[in-house]
Amino acid sequence: MHDGHKIVSIETLRDRLRDFALERDWDQFHTPKNLSMALIAEAAELVEHFQWVEGEKSHLLEDKVRPSVEEELADIFIYLVRIADKLGIDLYAAAERKIAINARKYPAERVRGSARKYTEYEGDDA
Amino acid sequence: MHDGHKIVSIETLRDRLRDFALERDWDQFHTPKNLSMALIAEAAELVEHFQWVEGEKSHLLEDKVRPSVEEELADIFIYLVRIADKLGIDLYAAAERKIAINARKYPAERVRGSARKYTEYEGDDA
Amino acid sequence: MHDGHKIVSIETLRDRLRDFALERDWDQFHTPKNLSMALIAEAAELVEHFQWVEGEKSHLLEDKVRPSVEEELADIFIYLVRIADKLGIDLYAAAERKIAINARKYPAERVRGSARKYTEYEGDDA
Amino acid sequence: MHDGHKIVSIETLRDRLRDFALERDWDQFHTPKNLSMALIAEAAELVEHFQWVEGEKSHLLEDKVRPSVEEELADIFIYLVRIADKLGIDLYAAAERKIAINARKYPAERVRGSARKYTEYEGDDA
Repeated sequence: MHDGHKIVSIETLRDRLRDFALERDWDQFHTPKNLSMALIAEAAELVEHFQWVEGEKSHLLEDKVRPSVEEELADIFIYLVRIADKLGIDLYAAAERKIAINARKYPAERVRGSARKYTEYEGDDA
Repeated sequence: MHDGHKIVSIETLRDRLRDFALERDWDQFHTPKNLSMALIAEAAELVEHFQWVEGEKSHLLEDKVRPSVEEELADIFIYLVRIADKLGIDLYAAAERKIAINARKYPAERVRGSARKYTEYEGDDA
Repeated sequence: MHDGHKIVSIETLRDRLRDFALERDWDQFHTPKNLSMALIAEAAELVEHFQWVEGEKSHLLEDKVRPSVEEELADIFIYLVRIADKLGIDLYAAAERKIAINARKYPAERVRGSARKYTEYEGDDA
Repeated sequence: MHDGHKIVSIETLRDRLRDFALERDWDQFHTPKNLSMALIAEAAELVEHFQWVEGEKSHLLEDKVRPSVEEELADIFIYLVRIADKLGIDLYAAAERKIAINARKYPAERVRGSARKYTEYEGDDA
């Protein structure tokens, strides 16, 4: 069993996932297409946790539920880092660019505090 | 407009997103429930890029497509970090735990290289 | 251009979709795998309509939004019928069986009216 | 327990689902918002079946897998009919309109047989 270093950055996580796939000869299955499917399947497990809960109450995770929500977030993170690695995309740089785009698209003084304004602009915001 | 520091860690990204929402008074909309919906909507936009492409070819992003794939990954990353922040979950620690779980579940010597073995165990693997 | 008969049943819809794909030589792309990706991408567009709206208010579609919600439902329906056709699955019979399963799993007298009970059983209910 | 009539049309399915929710006092949870989340969660379970399988092979469901794929399709169908009912949308009319839109958007003679053409137009096709 490979342990690797403690995960303290996206780079260490990326390397651990590379090793994990390599040891199992799983790279052949890890096409961006397949990984995008795996990622959305995990995202759906997250959604499932919240589907019948009121929005306000979704902040309060019960103790028995918390570990599995943590697992879903971990799964999404794992597949996200894996896809980014496969496609040679720098997640921080991409986030930086996207936040700049959103800042131009949703100027604070124009959209502040209004669900109305908010939903009009919905779709791709931070 | 807030610029903040260059994004070089999950903590700086988390802080930038906190500021972004605060400046727009958007925290009221950012329940874990709503954020999980936003995340899966972005995951679906990623899936859409690959839906008619063969798996092998999904590695090769055309130049005109690459920027939008980068944007989808950024969006997923942004919502993931935002949800983790709202729920007080440490993404690295969660990923560490999940990889340990996967390592026990899929011992390299048992599952190596076989799609057969792989799909039998499918569902939540790294 | 092919018009076909008015769509008044799943069978007529299925036949129209068969013709549509045949005329475009698209069957080669319509693997169950690809169609499942297309379906979830459409489901996500539906989710997107409701992501920042409060649950209660999600009943009230504004006039300008209604046509696009109708389109998302149509897209989901179209891909669902197409997958079922490709896999030789009878949707009514499958729904019939699933409702019977749910009826056993969630006896009315046990789960009635309680969100508490409801969420405990969450995951696959009608 | 309510049995209702055999399901042979969308209307009978819709009525069965109405009764099912009524008997359990679940209408309060069945907002379009929540139902859209439930639908996408089921769509993801379908995607999960195909995530590591090659496209061509996704036609061939093994006997042990078929019942659960049938269940996922049933779940998607159930939630789709339930949302359409809640929003007063006629699924056949909506599908009819969408196919007409797609027919104009993808003229057979222009898009025939080419993955190239196909992917250029990707996003919302039948």
